Amino acid sequence: MKKMINGVESLLEESLNGFAKAHDDIIQFNHQPHFVRRNEATKQGKVTLVSGGGSGHEPLHTGLVGKGMLDAACPGQIFTSPTPDQMMAAAESVENGGGVLFIVKNYAGDVMNFEIAAEMLECEHATVLVSDDVSLPKDHSTGRRGVAGTLIVEKIVGAAAEQGRSLMECKELGDRVNNATASMGVALTSCTVPAIGQPTFDIGDNEIEMGVGIHGERGREPMDLVSASDIVEHLATAIDEDLKPQKGQQVLLHVNGFGATPSMELYLIYELAAEHWAEKGVKVTRSLVGNYTTSLDMAGASITLTLLDDELTALWDEPVHAANLRWGC
Amino acid sequence: MKKMINGVESLLEESLNGFAKAHDDIIQFNHQPHFVRRNEATKQGKVTLVSGGGSGHEPLHTGLVGKGMLDAACPGQIFTSPTPDQMMAAAESVENGGGVLFIVKNYAGDVMNFEIAAEMLECEHATVLVSDDVSLPKDHSTGRRGVAGTLIVEKIVGAAAEQGRSLMECKELGDRVNNATASMGVALTSCTVPAIGQPTFDIGDNEIEMGVGIHGERGREPMDLVSASDIVEHLATAIDEDLKPQKGQQVLLHVNGFGATPSMELYLIYELAAEHWAEKGVKVTRSLVGNYTTSLDMAGASITLTLLDDELTALWDEPVHAANLRWGC
Repeated sequence: MKKMINGVESLLEESLNGFAKAHDDIIQFNHQPHFVRRNEATKQGKVTLVSGGGSGHEPLHTGLVGKGMLDAACPGQIFTSPTPDQMMAAAESVENGGGVLFIVKNYAGDVMNFEIAAEMLECEHATVLVSDDVSLPKDHSTGRRGVAGTLIVEKIVGAAAEQGRSLMECKELGDRVNNATASMGVALTSCTVPAIGQPTFDIGDNEIEMGVGIHGERGREPMDLVSASDIVEHLATAIDEDLKPQKGQQVLLHVNGFGATPSMELYLIYELAAEHWAEKGVKVTRSLVGNYTTSLDMAGASITLTLLDDELTALWDEPVHAANLRWGC
Repeated sequence: MKKMINGVESLLEESLNGFAKAHDDIIQFNHQPHFVRRNEATKQGKVTLVSGGGSGHEPLHTGLVGKGMLDAACPGQIFTSPTPDQMMAAAESVENGGGVLFIVKNYAGDVMNFEIAAEMLECEHATVLVSDDVSLPKDHSTGRRGVAGTLIVEKIVGAAAEQGRSLMECKELGDRVNNATASMGVALTSCTVPAIGQPTFDIGDNEIEMGVGIHGERGREPMDLVSASDIVEHLATAIDEDLKPQKGQQVLLHVNGFGATPSMELYLIYELAAEHWAEKGVKVTRSLVGNYTTSLDMAGASITLTLLDDELTALWDEPVHAANLRWGC
């Protein structure tokens, strides 16, 4: 394993210390228990958005804490759910009379721990489960995984909360964005979890893993390394079968890098995906390209499509001022 | 070679098409010859900033075109200088009565081609050569290489140009920022240039390349893989020997990923570097952490330090609205 670290035990804490120092104008890092929260006090009665999950997916979620997005995020150990005490402490630290909305990626550990935290919360609360990964069938036993679409949910609901919408309105909006969003990814290499020290899965020199999860879960199928156009056709077709975007539909197209893929390849994937949907008369009106929901040092990318309407577009365009996502302020 | 591409020949053009589509609110891509320019017309008499260089370092330079930064950028083939006709066409496309300032990384091909373009330009013009890589001695035969400090020069001079400073003022400011900036990098893996198809250099499983260049140039020395703290001590000491920051000095600390290094490791490097300078009484007052001057799929990072004064800090803080760097607007 080749990584720039001091030790497996200290990595998360040291890295979060650096993150907090680099962005001390926006966020602060609470050490016991671990959470990251906005510096700025929010308006009385604003719905509070709290997310979290295993570390190793940065900037998701800690890098998305800030005005117009999350109020707090709980980083677990790498690829490991945070604990209910982190979620409780984070929620209580930022709650301001409007109730707490948990935004949770659909993984068994995260779901269970956020449920425990929710039961203990004394304030009004609700949860949005994100399950945008179409590589698994809709009726999969534990449901579909939450992947890069999580950022879309957090951005849009974050804007709505900032506008003063109620907890139930934010919850319904989050569910609606989740249902309007589909993602699928492909890996060229495995990631390596520092505590394990070797790649999560084996993959041949001329093989790719289609439908991979963001923890290196094996996907739909390993297949031969094909052209970028063929890769995009695979991913986009799976998204189309699920989301069925109609001619004239406006969409947000998000190409997400898993961490080790050059910008040049991500923009190539974006170009091919944009062409795919242009040919179907689907209108890409908003875009996001970059490393946002990563899997440590995995090479590969995912495509996420969200069906937009005027309301969702306007909320997407609202200002956001997080450490790793910023516009309009 | 494992990459998501269609073909070596088409990669750059397809990727730039995607880049232009994803950011058509900010920039446009000229195909013959290749350059990226701001959409928005600039104020009459504003100094025009044009940069460029081999592709594969994205977001440098194309992702830094926009309000408050570059007016145009010329992407060469991967790790290959753009040609004088690109530079001429880019400069003439955006020049608006204030003259043209070329910002050029110090590599023989880039320097020569920008000189040829400058000689042919009919308008007033000047050039800032960036040479911030302290891994080579100051008296190296071809001078020091320009690396991640280039972004700092472009940001600060971009703000000055936007404020209406003259060509000579911008040129002097650029030289001053370059002299106040020092960088050094380390590689854990080599990058792979698609047209070559194999890693640029060999590196052992337990070896790192200290002082590596952004094209995979061998550095000062290969050494055993050491802890992150030792890596940072090496890089920061080399910077200190060159830049000699004094106690109380305010600095900008930029930790740059080469493309395949997880965010978690970059913030760890930032934390250790911030501690290194805090112990010396040097004050980190501005920060930038992320993949900005990349080397395709190389794993590793560089540290850049810029000595700040009130003027440079204020210019750094000015709004910027480029595809891949944005604040204040």
